[in-house]
Amino acid sequence: MTLDPAALDRIRVILVCTRNPLNIGAVARAMSNFGFAKLRVVNPYEPSFREAKSAVGASHILAAAKEFTLVADAIADCSLVIGTTTGRNRDVSHRILSLEAARDDIRAGLARGAVALMFGSEKRGLSNEDLAHCHWLLRIPTLEEHPSMNLGQAVAVCLYEIARSAASARNAHAAETPMTAGTHADAQPATAAELERITEVLLDGLRASGYVKPRTEAATEDNVRRLIRRLNLHSDDAKLLLGMLRKIGRKLGGDDE
Amino acid sequence: MTLDPAALDRIRVILVCTRNPLNIGAVARAMSNFGFAKLRVVNPYEPSFREAKSAVGASHILAAAKEFTLVADAIADCSLVIGTTTGRNRDVSHRILSLEAARDDIRAGLARGAVALMFGSEKRGLSNEDLAHCHWLLRIPTLEEHPSMNLGQAVAVCLYEIARSAASARNAHAAETPMTAGTHADAQPATAAELERITEVLLDGLRASGYVKPRTEAATEDNVRRLIRRLNLHSDDAKLLLGMLRKIGRKLGGDDE
Repeated sequence: MTLDPAALDRIRVILVCTRNPLNIGAVARAMSNFGFAKLRVVNPYEPSFREAKSAVGASHILAAAKEFTLVADAIADCSLVIGTTTGRNRDVSHRILSLEAARDDIRAGLARGAVALMFGSEKRGLSNEDLAHCHWLLRIPTLEEHPSMNLGQAVAVCLYEIARSAASARNAHAAETPMTAGTHADAQPATAAELERITEVLLDGLRASGYVKPRTEAATEDNVRRLIRRLNLHSDDAKLLLGMLRKIGRKLGGDDE
Repeated sequence: MTLDPAALDRIRVILVCTRNPLNIGAVARAMSNFGFAKLRVVNPYEPSFREAKSAVGASHILAAAKEFTLVADAIADCSLVIGTTTGRNRDVSHRILSLEAARDDIRAGLARGAVALMFGSEKRGLSNEDLAHCHWLLRIPTLEEHPSMNLGQAVAVCLYEIARSAASARNAHAAETPMTAGTHADAQPATAAELERITEVLLDGLRASGYVKPRTEAATEDNVRRLIRRLNLHSDDAKLLLGMLRKIGRKLGGDDE
């Protein structure tokens, strides 16, 4: 499968809770170097974000960067959400791909819709709550003894690899990776917003049924959110499932219509 | 040709006339991330270099960095000298390779001796005099409109590519899928029996909620059965989902436990 060069425009770089304005600026610079335009920041340290935006020579990318309060909103239009990790807070429920190994999956994702590439804060990386929104995780192959990269450098390396993949895909003659199997191969994957709606409706039902216990509510929410992401739903199936869960939810709520 | 992992130790990163201490620190950090140790600086802006060396948490790489006045001395022990360029001050007497295309030449150089990878100052890059020491030039494939990278990011991208080349040489014989996968890669897929139990419990809930209409009952059953099969559930997830649906089903059935 060759990748339409315009597909790079479907990458959204998402910075979650970034502190250092220099890092935000460095990310924007790497994006312009490699041809990416869509930058989104979630809960940046406010003075830091304002400073970066207003810096002399701030790029059009920074000026156009969108700000969000919730990760869910920042990724709502994305059908593939990739988190970055050093592999230390390794979460066994997620598949972890090394950057190079991830290229085919990223390429396939870009061929079908918007792809979010999410980076956590300089100190802590992505939280478990952030990770719950991710379909899978990406790890830059650093040394195990020194896994933690500078944020701007990590973004640059990822974008280099993705741009490189696109370039070589562009030059490839034929389709080597047939993506997924089955008739659904060219179906639209569900967007993050659709997955989140399913998650919410299912959680409502689980609350009404007593499945959710007060003491473990946060953990259960997390588990449900991850489970729904692991299903690899297509948009059609997401709509179907949402319709079913809504109907059940209304019944649970005592509404007999 | 496979590359001896120890060969990475034969790379010398040479920074010529670097101004910004943050950049020197960032270069050292990227080196430690990717397993390179030998940093040499030529005519750094003095206060800047001292500041970087004495910074809290300065790495062993920075502490061991050697300082030179002349490029010729900094590269004296190297049998291959590679300059980096944005391609703008293009010197027609030099061969310019893109980073990825350069990997074989770098690998061959490392097999034979020490290799210098030289980066110029933030503002001007390498001078013509510096370039005269180079066997050939390397260019990171940035956009022509935005070719100039941040120094720390440029070094990180180059070292990622060189380390990647070494790693893939190292793994060439072994398994083709590197890294991948948390526990879910080798998790057991759900059995047909598990899928059918989920289907039945979900269908019961859909009947109780009025989602299933008598006239289309057979078609709905079929749709639900197919949907559940398309989810590609692992056995663990199947159990999780079944538990949730059962709890909801009991509530719908009027059983409050």
